[in-house]
Amino acid sequence: MKQFSISPQNIKYEIPDDSNRHDEIIKLQRRCDNERRINKKIVVIQGLGFVGSMMAAVIADCEINTKSPYFVIGVDLPLSSSFWKIPLINAGQSPFQARDANVNEVFNSAIKVKNNLIATWVPEAYHEADIIVVDINLDVTKTELGKSEESQIDLSPFERAIEDVGKNMNPDALLLIETTVPPGSLEFVIKPIIEKCFNLRGIDIIDHPPLIAHSYERVTPGAEYVQSIKGMRRTYSALSQEASNRTKEFLSSFINTTKYPLWELQKTTASEVAKVLENSYRATNIAFIYEWTLFAEDIGINLFDVVNSIKVRKGTHDNMMFPGFGVGGYCLTKDSLLAQWSSKNLFNRKETLGFSLEAINVNDLMPHHTFDLLMKGLGNSIKGKKIAILGASYRKDVDDTRNSPSITLWDDIIKAGGVPFIHDPFATVMDRREDIKIDSDLYFVINNAAGLVFAVNHQEYIDLSANRIIKLIDKNACIVDAFDVLTDDKIGYLKQNYLKVLGVGKGHIKYI
Amino acid sequence: MKQFSISPQNIKYEIPDDSNRHDEIIKLQRRCDNERRINKKIVVIQGLGFVGSMMAAVIADCEINTKSPYFVIGVDLPLSSSFWKIPLINAGQSPFQARDANVNEVFNSAIKVKNNLIATWVPEAYHEADIIVVDINLDVTKTELGKSEESQIDLSPFERAIEDVGKNMNPDALLLIETTVPPGSLEFVIKPIIEKCFNLRGIDIIDHPPLIAHSYERVTPGAEYVQSIKGMRRTYSALSQEASNRTKEFLSSFINTTKYPLWELQKTTASEVAKVLENSYRATNIAFIYEWTLFAEDIGINLFDVVNSIKVRKGTHDNMMFPGFGVGGYCLTKDSLLAQWSSKNLFNRKETLGFSLEAINVNDLMPHHTFDLLMKGLGNSIKGKKIAILGASYRKDVDDTRNSPSITLWDDIIKAGGVPFIHDPFATVMDRREDIKIDSDLYFVINNAAGLVFAVNHQEYIDLSANRIIKLIDKNACIVDAFDVLTDDKIGYLKQNYLKVLGVGKGHIKYI
Repeated sequence: MKQFSISPQNIKYEIPDDSNRHDEIIKLQRRCDNERRINKKIVVIQGLGFVGSMMAAVIADCEINTKSPYFVIGVDLPLSSSFWKIPLINAGQSPFQARDANVNEVFNSAIKVKNNLIATWVPEAYHEADIIVVDINLDVTKTELGKSEESQIDLSPFERAIEDVGKNMNPDALLLIETTVPPGSLEFVIKPIIEKCFNLRGIDIIDHPPLIAHSYERVTPGAEYVQSIKGMRRTYSALSQEASNRTKEFLSSFINTTKYPLWELQKTTASEVAKVLENSYRATNIAFIYEWTLFAEDIGINLFDVVNSIKVRKGTHDNMMFPGFGVGGYCLTKDSLLAQWSSKNLFNRKETLGFSLEAINVNDLMPHHTFDLLMKGLGNSIKGKKIAILGASYRKDVDDTRNSPSITLWDDIIKAGGVPFIHDPFATVMDRREDIKIDSDLYFVINNAAGLVFAVNHQEYIDLSANRIIKLIDKNACIVDAFDVLTDDKIGYLKQNYLKVLGVGKGHIKYI
Repeated sequence: MKQFSISPQNIKYEIPDDSNRHDEIIKLQRRCDNERRINKKIVVIQGLGFVGSMMAAVIADCEINTKSPYFVIGVDLPLSSSFWKIPLINAGQSPFQARDANVNEVFNSAIKVKNNLIATWVPEAYHEADIIVVDINLDVTKTELGKSEESQIDLSPFERAIEDVGKNMNPDALLLIETTVPPGSLEFVIKPIIEKCFNLRGIDIIDHPPLIAHSYERVTPGAEYVQSIKGMRRTYSALSQEASNRTKEFLSSFINTTKYPLWELQKTTASEVAKVLENSYRATNIAFIYEWTLFAEDIGINLFDVVNSIKVRKGTHDNMMFPGFGVGGYCLTKDSLLAQWSSKNLFNRKETLGFSLEAINVNDLMPHHTFDLLMKGLGNSIKGKKIAILGASYRKDVDDTRNSPSITLWDDIIKAGGVPFIHDPFATVMDRREDIKIDSDLYFVINNAAGLVFAVNHQEYIDLSANRIIKLIDKNACIVDAFDVLTDDKIGYLKQNYLKVLGVGKGHIKYI
């Protein structure tokens, strides 16, 4: 039976089966032979998600002395959830959308202009590689939000993916791990798998110690999506000097290392810790400000103003977080849990990363507070009422809906008997929640709504005039603003109306 | 019976009694009359601690168009613990020492060159003031470290001090609160006290509403002690427009507001929250890194390297804290507790500031970990052994020993039967712990010690050569380095020796 994979743009692609396999491998080999003949190295990217697909395009687009040093192959699995990215990339398009004009430019240049990037589903691609970059997911499964201590981490899909590489890779190739992994994974998980594969293939690991390195990306989908790869500091570490040298050379070829120098750490475990520590730090700072958000609301002050006044202290306080709606995405919602898993399972520690874990719980439950404000604004009566949620993605100006806090709000509204509608200018599907239909017609979503929630600060929402909302929305409606979209400056002059505005982190109900 | 007050330099001053009172008042009045005649405004500073004494000197030293706009009077209580500051200031000296050459310069200029600052103990000084600046303490009493939830806050000494002002102040004077207070204090504590005093004095508070404002200082004793008043951003907020205008004018006269503009918040409660939030944020970030410090040690990586590699992310991660020894001083050890007190007692909230309170506990107990490393390095045998603690103050290059974590370490060593010696190049007395004698002879303290702890990173310790330590210390000694004073670069070349070096946040024992 034919299998299909459907893109977010609702295009249906047939998933190839084993009958297509041989042809695909031959086609790949011929292509790589040709590219090698013109002195290109072959880079294979494993995983075409937000990171891998953009890495593939940036590397394929890079030039050294006006020449492309690499031919790039992106690999993903032939599953309904992932296959669609392969034909999309081969057609010259980015699988993901963001408010960054460079995204389409880089994909167009890499694929259509330079003809330097293809995508495939066959693991034999790894055999062709001089450099393999691992950008696959390593997932955490949460059984219940707010109970991160019960979450499950199953390494086996990741281990199988590494096995795919180990079975196929050239023993002289560099294996560069970009996936966020539990600290210690390079030494205690990945290296043993590759060595086992080499042994089974009869490769002498004394003569050919696998060249393995870790360099975590700091990709931030959004307005700086492309720049976050090419123009951002990078830390790396390798298991051998040879792997370290090769990693340095490779990273320097597509990162502007004059302006953003590389940073080498002495141990791969240190580099792995750095990544999860960075994100645990951000997550904890978000959770920290939440308790002050509730305090500010109860005592009647605007915490956005307060935080702004503190952030002028550059270097010590300028990264203080603002009040908000919740935390989504792939990193901040789980990286502390990877560290904790590692602590317990790879290093047999009893101590827990207390603040880091509690932060995950606080952040996961945070959207409930916006729901509580909504209920307060509606006088505890939500049954049958239309509620407009503005924003399905978790982050400004990007289409990424993974672990979006809007999902939690949606569920709260449904559970209480309300009728949610959700709009997003970028996202078209809600990750893992096909039941939540995202609408692209903002005015339709707002029209006659009894409640409206600003759940993310997309530029389109900031640009939306209060008068426009007033015209569309139900005249007794309440608005809950979790992102200071309706700043005091913006709505201060509107005093004649009767729409309640409740702000997360603001102490008073305003009327516009 | 005569009472005395002894300075940290061990000079004994006789405390004046009521028989001196009348003369002091007359002297003050005459002086103020003279100063007013040459168009100076009178500024009275209440409290001559780290903040008040430096504020007094900076304001007395400031000039507008080459003229001194203010004559300044510093007021403190005639108690044995505080009186010594008054004769010291009147002799032209700073009561506090720091590695900042500007400190002595400012005091000398204000007092000896310009003859523009005097100090006194009589509350009648407030009567003379055009502007009163409150810089007294508002203390938290901890019954036990690690149990911040049981700490006690007694507002009454603060309330009595405000009453002293209210009974004496000119109703047209500006009352500027710089003390860190529980948020809401201006509205719910200070304003009612002043109004009550005015009522009792027959002053019509409708005609003469008291002019009260809040502007918290960001004074950091240390190499930038003076600059932290003159060249630092300031936030303020006032209870009336008139008080706001007067505060703005006053602050602008001694702060470089062109380069460091003032920031006004709409509510005094917001300004009060800003101060405690700033410090709670720092305290929480310190506590956060502690759990990663323990993780790093257990898995064998150097967390200083990791944090350095992350801090390159300017604006988002550059204020990440390093591993450390503990937290001391007057602000970070208590400000979250003021917020919690306010939350419960002024606003009747049940919710707690969870991360902020837990951070206080984690930080208070942190020095125990350094003690544990010391015990590990000594093979659990400390009885009768000399232990050198390098650093009595809680902060680099300053003499402030308030709540110093070195006190906790000292007690741990004593309790285990060790013999602690403590050195500091700045501090001469340990705040509230007269039993702890601080030695100024570094080599005497190190000589033949079986253990040595770098408890703060004074420049003198950074400049100390490892070879010098090796020559002095017991040959089987262990060194515990809580501040990366002995960086890998510094001791890397010394491999021939047998001194154990254990680093907080570092995974391996090194030998020098």
